[in-house]
Amino acid sequence: MADGLDVLRDRLRGFADARDWPRYHTPRNLALALAGEVGELAAELQWIADGEVADHLADPDAKARLADEVADVLIYLTRFADVCDIDLVSAANAKIDRNEMRFPPAAR
Amino acid sequence: MADGLDVLRDRLRGFADARDWPRYHTPRNLALALAGEVGELAAELQWIADGEVADHLADPDAKARLADEVADVLIYLTRFADVCDIDLVSAANAKIDRNEMRFPPAAR
Amino acid sequence: MADGLDVLRDRLRGFADARDWPRYHTPRNLALALAGEVGELAAELQWIADGEVADHLADPDAKARLADEVADVLIYLTRFADVCDIDLVSAANAKIDRNEMRFPPAAR
Amino acid sequence: MADGLDVLRDRLRGFADARDWPRYHTPRNLALALAGEVGELAAELQWIADGEVADHLADPDAKARLADEVADVLIYLTRFADVCDIDLVSAANAKIDRNEMRFPPAAR
Repeated sequence: MADGLDVLRDRLRGFADARDWPRYHTPRNLALALAGEVGELAAELQWIADGEVADHLADPDAKARLADEVADVLIYLTRFADVCDIDLVSAANAKIDRNEMRFPPAAR
Repeated sequence: MADGLDVLRDRLRGFADARDWPRYHTPRNLALALAGEVGELAAELQWIADGEVADHLADPDAKARLADEVADVLIYLTRFADVCDIDLVSAANAKIDRNEMRFPPAAR
Repeated sequence: MADGLDVLRDRLRGFADARDWPRYHTPRNLALALAGEVGELAAELQWIADGEVADHLADPDAKARLADEVADVLIYLTRFADVCDIDLVSAANAKIDRNEMRFPPAAR
Repeated sequence: MADGLDVLRDRLRGFADARDWPRYHTPRNLALALAGEVGELAAELQWIADGEVADHLADPDAKARLADEVADVLIYLTRFADVCDIDLVSAANAKIDRNEMRFPPAAR
């Protein structure tokens, strides 16, 4: 079975190619876009106090808006990693390997 | 074969559980952390002009630092989606479905 | 003559008070809002290559949109500093004092 | 008496000039740097729950770290506005003028 994130990466690559967008999808353009999308995700929770988040997310519209922002972040992150030739999941697993050394389970 | 992002999500969940970190991994905490990690990714390219990015990424150390920041963004995004009960790849594919309507291939 | 940023801080404080918004203007809410506004500022330049920025900013509409985003960042930064009881300009000058030591004029 | 933010802008301009940094201080470089600094500010509060922020800020070290991040955001915002030829305080006041129309005092 094909890996979900590999399929997503290939789909986004095809999507960009079909629109002649690779010339826009430079690392710095995508880094700025990523900052924009994470800002939109942050803004979804900006006026919701910690104690109100659970109720907020129980609202299907609010949840759908948040899922939409999460999607945009993953989309731009996947494109960014693709144009920079970085394997996203491998990079994340390598980082967790190191974190397992830095933060032993009993700590904190 | 297990999906790479599902495995990553489960690994991060186990990592947090083993350290009693779920109490810290609230949606708003993770949103702030995500803004921090995307800021670190952006900072990696802040003094590299567009025309110098390719040479910059040809340097293994610079590439490794960038991969490390990309990894951190994916890690916090995965945790954020997990604690908010959002399926990352499904949300992204749903968004691309809509974008295919909004931006026909010939456009722009 | 009153200082421009002091006047702005007081105006924003009065603006919030008149709308019963101080209960929303908590440090973490404003930090998330700030991430959102900086994301909007970044997004204004996300598809403009380095070599096209000067022409882009020569367009009055593009310039006005950017000024608007810059304004939002300053507004939330000023509110954030106010509710955290931080003097913005003093903090910046203290930081530059330290940077003058760290980066002697001839360096880099 | 000179305005605090005008003095800061001129000081930062002189600081950059003395180090031959204006070539690095392009709008996009500074936008990426700004995203980085706001990320550091966000990170200062990422593991502090809403109810713990007041105690956190009562700690002089934590307060000083936060002031330092606030300073960095103002510094890069001021440089960004300067190189884009935007008057920061005027832009903010123009925005508040419009917000006073959009959000009448009784509302929300």
